[in-house]
Amino acid sequence: MSHPPASQIPAPQAKDRDLKFRERISARIIAATEAIIVAEGLSAVQARRIATDAGCSVGTIYNIFGDIDGLILGVNTRTLHALGEELRAAQRRMEGQNLEGRLMALAVAYLDFATVNRRRWRAVFEHRLPESRDTPPDYVEDRRALLALIEAELAAAIPDPAAREDAAHALFAATHGNVLLAIDEKLGPFEPDRCERQIRFLVHAVTGSIGAAAEAGRAADR
Amino acid sequence: MSHPPASQIPAPQAKDRDLKFRERISARIIAATEAIIVAEGLSAVQARRIATDAGCSVGTIYNIFGDIDGLILGVNTRTLHALGEELRAAQRRMEGQNLEGRLMALAVAYLDFATVNRRRWRAVFEHRLPESRDTPPDYVEDRRALLALIEAELAAAIPDPAAREDAAHALFAATHGNVLLAIDEKLGPFEPDRCERQIRFLVHAVTGSIGAAAEAGRAADR
Repeated sequence: MSHPPASQIPAPQAKDRDLKFRERISARIIAATEAIIVAEGLSAVQARRIATDAGCSVGTIYNIFGDIDGLILGVNTRTLHALGEELRAAQRRMEGQNLEGRLMALAVAYLDFATVNRRRWRAVFEHRLPESRDTPPDYVEDRRALLALIEAELAAAIPDPAAREDAAHALFAATHGNVLLAIDEKLGPFEPDRCERQIRFLVHAVTGSIGAAAEAGRAADR
Repeated sequence: MSHPPASQIPAPQAKDRDLKFRERISARIIAATEAIIVAEGLSAVQARRIATDAGCSVGTIYNIFGDIDGLILGVNTRTLHALGEELRAAQRRMEGQNLEGRLMALAVAYLDFATVNRRRWRAVFEHRLPESRDTPPDYVEDRRALLALIEAELAAAIPDPAAREDAAHALFAATHGNVLLAIDEKLGPFEPDRCERQIRFLVHAVTGSIGAAAEAGRAADR
């Protein structure tokens, strides 16, 4: 194994400085992109404009994020983390409540997050990667962590992991659909109370149904 | 009341001819717009390109549809009608089945329509009118007619009209959310069977829940 001459190896402090510089500029680029999304939505995101706002070159953006899609995934990751924090906070507040109450707390926290962070939330779902490109594993993991919050709630009622994952996906997508069509006023004017009532109708039905199934399972075991 | 001189009143035949010309050119503009949406999606819709494809001037488009939003609503109205025909066909095929089977038939027809007519279907939900503008009454009526298909199925199980409307909205939005996130691969790769399984989980829970509520209502009446 050959070593590069000592003069070519950056001193540890210099390497740290480079890494810190990269982190700082990357954070500035993400902040600039997020600000554009918050103000005008995903369609306003343009590399040249972000470079101006972040005080760097367009080349630096591509160097750090690969392309605009990589940068948008970076912003959307931050949004998923912020959403996750809200959902976990709602979960903590509802400790000791029954399943319906706990699932509703998650759903209402989701509705509130979408209402308050409308454009950032929308960007997560509006952004589509080119068909040739797979979603990065880190992003898949962040998404899975959110769904795991719902799965954890269902653990006692649905012991089978595959059925539980299906149920969590179904509940999340049902809540998302109700929130999205309400906020976009696709079925009528936006009424948060009405949206919450609709989600409660579904969550009440689901908790009743899986409660009855679990009861039947226990009876069969006896 | 003053009348215009006879020479300024168009002969009935000429008026008919004008109307027919307007209908013909309007149909050509809508067809050209729909073709662009089918090929490239809503974001590719541009007045100049449509004018070229339809063989008319940009002024004619604005003259007939008011603006691009009016034109897109025209295309989306056609999509809602096509969707309505599929849903009604599914309903006819399921005559005599129980409520769960009938609601699932509607949901699966919706999933199929969205899968086959992906970009047209997407355009209905991606298009947002400027906040200053109300949705035209005809479009609201077309949308209501689709939701009425679900409400009709629920009539026996949920006698209260307001609760029934909520339930129909909840079910439609839940199905839409599951179909949208599946097709957009937002929770994982698109698997139509999995999407159908998730929707069945919800529909089964809802029909069980409203069946039990109706039964309790009947018991209270006795």
